[in-house]
Amino acid sequence: MSDLRIAVLGVGLMGADHVARITSRISGARVAVVNDYLAEKAEQVAAGIPGCQAISDPLDAIADPDVDAVLLATPGPTHEKQLLTCLEHRKPVLCEKPLTTDVDTSLEVVRREAELGTRLIQVGFMRRFDDEYAGLKALVDGGELGSPLVLHCVHRNPAVPDHFDSVMTVRDSLVHEVDVTRFLFDEEITSIQIVTPTPNPAAREGLFDPQIAIMRTASGKHVDVELFVTTGVAYEVRTELVAEKGSAMIGLDVGLVRKSAPGTWGGTITPSFKERFGRAYDTEIQRWVDAVRRGAGTGNHVDGPSAWDGYAATAVCEAGVQALTSGQPVAVHMVDRASIPGA
Amino acid sequence: MSDLRIAVLGVGLMGADHVARITSRISGARVAVVNDYLAEKAEQVAAGIPGCQAISDPLDAIADPDVDAVLLATPGPTHEKQLLTCLEHRKPVLCEKPLTTDVDTSLEVVRREAELGTRLIQVGFMRRFDDEYAGLKALVDGGELGSPLVLHCVHRNPAVPDHFDSVMTVRDSLVHEVDVTRFLFDEEITSIQIVTPTPNPAAREGLFDPQIAIMRTASGKHVDVELFVTTGVAYEVRTELVAEKGSAMIGLDVGLVRKSAPGTWGGTITPSFKERFGRAYDTEIQRWVDAVRRGAGTGNHVDGPSAWDGYAATAVCEAGVQALTSGQPVAVHMVDRASIPGA
Amino acid sequence: MSDLRIAVLGVGLMGADHVARITSRISGARVAVVNDYLAEKAEQVAAGIPGCQAISDPLDAIADPDVDAVLLATPGPTHEKQLLTCLEHRKPVLCEKPLTTDVDTSLEVVRREAELGTRLIQVGFMRRFDDEYAGLKALVDGGELGSPLVLHCVHRNPAVPDHFDSVMTVRDSLVHEVDVTRFLFDEEITSIQIVTPTPNPAAREGLFDPQIAIMRTASGKHVDVELFVTTGVAYEVRTELVAEKGSAMIGLDVGLVRKSAPGTWGGTITPSFKERFGRAYDTEIQRWVDAVRRGAGTGNHVDGPSAWDGYAATAVCEAGVQALTSGQPVAVHMVDRASIPGA
Amino acid sequence: MSDLRIAVLGVGLMGADHVARITSRISGARVAVVNDYLAEKAEQVAAGIPGCQAISDPLDAIADPDVDAVLLATPGPTHEKQLLTCLEHRKPVLCEKPLTTDVDTSLEVVRREAELGTRLIQVGFMRRFDDEYAGLKALVDGGELGSPLVLHCVHRNPAVPDHFDSVMTVRDSLVHEVDVTRFLFDEEITSIQIVTPTPNPAAREGLFDPQIAIMRTASGKHVDVELFVTTGVAYEVRTELVAEKGSAMIGLDVGLVRKSAPGTWGGTITPSFKERFGRAYDTEIQRWVDAVRRGAGTGNHVDGPSAWDGYAATAVCEAGVQALTSGQPVAVHMVDRASIPGA
Repeated sequence: MSDLRIAVLGVGLMGADHVARITSRISGARVAVVNDYLAEKAEQVAAGIPGCQAISDPLDAIADPDVDAVLLATPGPTHEKQLLTCLEHRKPVLCEKPLTTDVDTSLEVVRREAELGTRLIQVGFMRRFDDEYAGLKALVDGGELGSPLVLHCVHRNPAVPDHFDSVMTVRDSLVHEVDVTRFLFDEEITSIQIVTPTPNPAAREGLFDPQIAIMRTASGKHVDVELFVTTGVAYEVRTELVAEKGSAMIGLDVGLVRKSAPGTWGGTITPSFKERFGRAYDTEIQRWVDAVRRGAGTGNHVDGPSAWDGYAATAVCEAGVQALTSGQPVAVHMVDRASIPGA
Repeated sequence: MSDLRIAVLGVGLMGADHVARITSRISGARVAVVNDYLAEKAEQVAAGIPGCQAISDPLDAIADPDVDAVLLATPGPTHEKQLLTCLEHRKPVLCEKPLTTDVDTSLEVVRREAELGTRLIQVGFMRRFDDEYAGLKALVDGGELGSPLVLHCVHRNPAVPDHFDSVMTVRDSLVHEVDVTRFLFDEEITSIQIVTPTPNPAAREGLFDPQIAIMRTASGKHVDVELFVTTGVAYEVRTELVAEKGSAMIGLDVGLVRKSAPGTWGGTITPSFKERFGRAYDTEIQRWVDAVRRGAGTGNHVDGPSAWDGYAATAVCEAGVQALTSGQPVAVHMVDRASIPGA
Repeated sequence: MSDLRIAVLGVGLMGADHVARITSRISGARVAVVNDYLAEKAEQVAAGIPGCQAISDPLDAIADPDVDAVLLATPGPTHEKQLLTCLEHRKPVLCEKPLTTDVDTSLEVVRREAELGTRLIQVGFMRRFDDEYAGLKALVDGGELGSPLVLHCVHRNPAVPDHFDSVMTVRDSLVHEVDVTRFLFDEEITSIQIVTPTPNPAAREGLFDPQIAIMRTASGKHVDVELFVTTGVAYEVRTELVAEKGSAMIGLDVGLVRKSAPGTWGGTITPSFKERFGRAYDTEIQRWVDAVRRGAGTGNHVDGPSAWDGYAATAVCEAGVQALTSGQPVAVHMVDRASIPGA
Repeated sequence: MSDLRIAVLGVGLMGADHVARITSRISGARVAVVNDYLAEKAEQVAAGIPGCQAISDPLDAIADPDVDAVLLATPGPTHEKQLLTCLEHRKPVLCEKPLTTDVDTSLEVVRREAELGTRLIQVGFMRRFDDEYAGLKALVDGGELGSPLVLHCVHRNPAVPDHFDSVMTVRDSLVHEVDVTRFLFDEEITSIQIVTPTPNPAAREGLFDPQIAIMRTASGKHVDVELFVTTGVAYEVRTELVAEKGSAMIGLDVGLVRKSAPGTWGGTITPSFKERFGRAYDTEIQRWVDAVRRGAGTGNHVDGPSAWDGYAATAVCEAGVQALTSGQPVAVHMVDRASIPGA
């Protein structure tokens, strides 16, 4: 099957990141079209990618026959029109949050997609793809912890830009915890309260920070979220799920930690090298592929352990096998590396 | 640039895993040829990959003009000949460890590659690509801990196959720590001693397990390695580096933990969402690409949050913005999902 | 100075524990009088302690001239009268919480003590004496974290007795977090809200469990407390303080963990053996003292490492000193223990 | 029973610490006699303790009829004579390590005590009384981990005095791990090897530091110990026991961490408030006793939460009970503290 041809709309910070991702780390896809309200920027990005063109009108980019699917990284207010155009052309679209900026237009988009009878729109709540969140969801769904009851969330940023205001805390930060809640609890949120304590002295005048959001779901589950965007420390995202038979926390920098009867806490050790080093293998192969593709020009087709490294390991192991029977220190014999120019 | 065409030699457990990796997760490469000493197996694998053929002779596979690079996942004793053939045809090759099974043939391979004046051989010590090992190496190279002095390693498997013997502990398990030592210390190992305590009652008769390897490097650094392959617990790989100004440990299931003056322990929090969720983005996009490529057949181009999920988030945030000023609980208004067939 | 003579009023679970504590682990005090509304129980306890008498009327016990100080472990409703009697007789008193069962009588007790011009009443909020809480308080007072802003508390019990109701969650569990808040923030609480999510299926009919308390202090700081008394897991008490320049958490089973700029997390390693093993020394000496006091009757004045243990250590170290120069394994020479009857 | 009268011989750093401990934290004992080779120092210490005298000759101090038991904190070379004098007078003695400075005199002491048929000598290996070591021993003895096989120990000091030499690493540091090994394994050590890697640049010229001790026990168990006394970091003592069915580590600043089948890691949560806050209660009562004993002179008999603290807690809980039914924020009503002078 040939590669999926994607149009990326919006090549600001997030969009440019997606362009790089699709080009260098995603299998089976390529960026065929880019668009940005700054036409020059789009041209620049397109120039760096073989077979990619810049199209100056976003709706034209969507409609282009050489585009199989669309990735929206444009500002929220433009989403409605772009999404409806995608639906019209039956183009699958991955839309960075928010879907649209208000509830009526969001609902309209939902209705229009539903009428088509085919699912075309995915929203970019990427936490669902994070190993820890996925693990927490699996733990909940596995039933080991019984009914979920309460969710405690923490969302902290070291700093925010000057234009960031109290409403953005809700729309841009809380929105992730809203999706996490719905993802983990599989039900809708029915009410929300926001507590605004005395602000952090470091927060800009007028910015309520921290804020505490208190939500309740359809079945009466409780969620609280600390939103704190001027901590000066780091990016911290933490979620603790409290359930009938135990609790589990992610985001503690120590993987998923579970507490359960009869009074134990802890995590899971990787059962085999596949879980432990699976990603290392991916990285190894991707970097080797990249090195080989560059190799013709450089005379170096390697980005990792060399033949010499393999020789040295063999030499040590050979001495080790002798040491196994002698019990005494055994000297390792190797030739002098300098005696082999180029090794 | 067109995709790199790889020949995978050996499609047993490890080779098949690499085939799947290159086909579905690696950007810029595809499996063009497979080979196995079981010809039928190779045929089977090739049949599942568009544009891939099985070639029954491994040396022919290497030489094939449609092959740009070779991945060796064949048994160790066949490596020498296959590597030399790669060199002869100037084909870059990623060789699963060991390079070869004895020190003389390993050295011969090193010499032959060196004579070519171009680096073509990479050895599959994949730990160097693991985030924790890479982080430990960066910490050492950054100089913050001063001179490295001692390395404590633990390598534990829950179980091994029946044919696993004491020599394999050295050749197949210790070999990884040999490379880790050389990678972290950037110098050669000069002597090795192996202590064999009273064996684990669960170990097969005749298997020395655990074993303790004690190594010394050229400049006099000390390394000890516990090798224990019948623990019954899990796969545990741990490395502690002790240096002039502090120590650091990886493999504790809690990321890299550093101890340094003036008497503190701890790790690093991710500075931004890019470090924290970068992989989640990769996964999100890869799964979306896969879903869209499958979509024509299924009428579903989504593998993640749907338009409804976007609508729900918008509705909650809208209530949240009201709650921000009222301080009281605010009800969330949403239409009934069932009222929109297909949503 | 002679030992402080204490009257313990109430020798139920908590009172009996205090009697044992004062008798066997506290220096400079002894239980001189015990009282309980079950006179027989008091007699029984008194019989086990040299020089201790049971007095059947609690107010007589307080007034007794052989009593220097009083420890109240009686039911809450009796506290008011007993405290006022202590004040009348100028007897220092340690009163288990609550001070009294309602706010008017509590205030009356405060007024009466204040009129005396001497501090006689201490309340049993023992968390202030816990190393972790004390450490958190010291961290706050040290100023390193800047202004405290938010407190997140978790208070979980595995189970409660059948008579435990929703009000007891507030009066008996939340009361500790109330004191922790006032201790850490050094200011009064001005409002409180309690959220009652859908109850845990395991909770008794009619018991709101979990409950979420949301409090605000005089200066506008936010506190939330999860109170959950039917977890089935264990006793979990956790407090996270979020401040201007970082946050710190206790109760994670890993000591105090601090997060602060520039993006690090971690704790403190004990600077010397005194901090690390100070308590072990206390335990060692107390157990040795106890063994020696029992020794006349048993012929054994030891509760710990024996002379043989000392000999064995010396023998190994002597071999170790030889090994230091030889670099080779050195055999340890010791006589056969059986050759010394009684060793 | 009257208090045990102890003679403390040697009131240097360690001895003075023991004097303070017995005087202020140990129940049922008092320091009756002190001795030091610096007579003036002993006089000074004695002057600060009611009913304590200084005796200038250590053997006289032991023999004194007002002494029930002896604590030796004198230099090692004086131990032999002092221990034999204790035996002669049938005085129980707690002897700081080493028992004596060489193996022959140690054995002589063992023989002489054995001949008496009563156990009088305890050696000060205090780690056996540390909660973590005691917990590890209990875990081993409980059999859950199966046969112990290997012990990995780390013993690190931030710095040592100038006169500290390579032999002291063995005699003063390793000696603790020697006892830990014998305590945990319940068997003797039969051989020892010491590896001396390239020294830490920060170590004094001529000091082998770090050192690695490799020991083997009677039944063939393996022990390795990293001894590193110039780390510049902190005091770190860590022990990992590897056994047939799992492993457990202490000294990681996170309590005892256990790994066992089927692939889990973790610890134990305190089952009730007694385990969690038992020590806080001890501290609370000891500090209250101390405050009351000081109280007559100061007019303050309190060292902890006051009556006001009790009142405030009651006031908040009363509001909390209202909030429980209303679900809304409820204001807390309290009188102004300043309206009650002295409160």
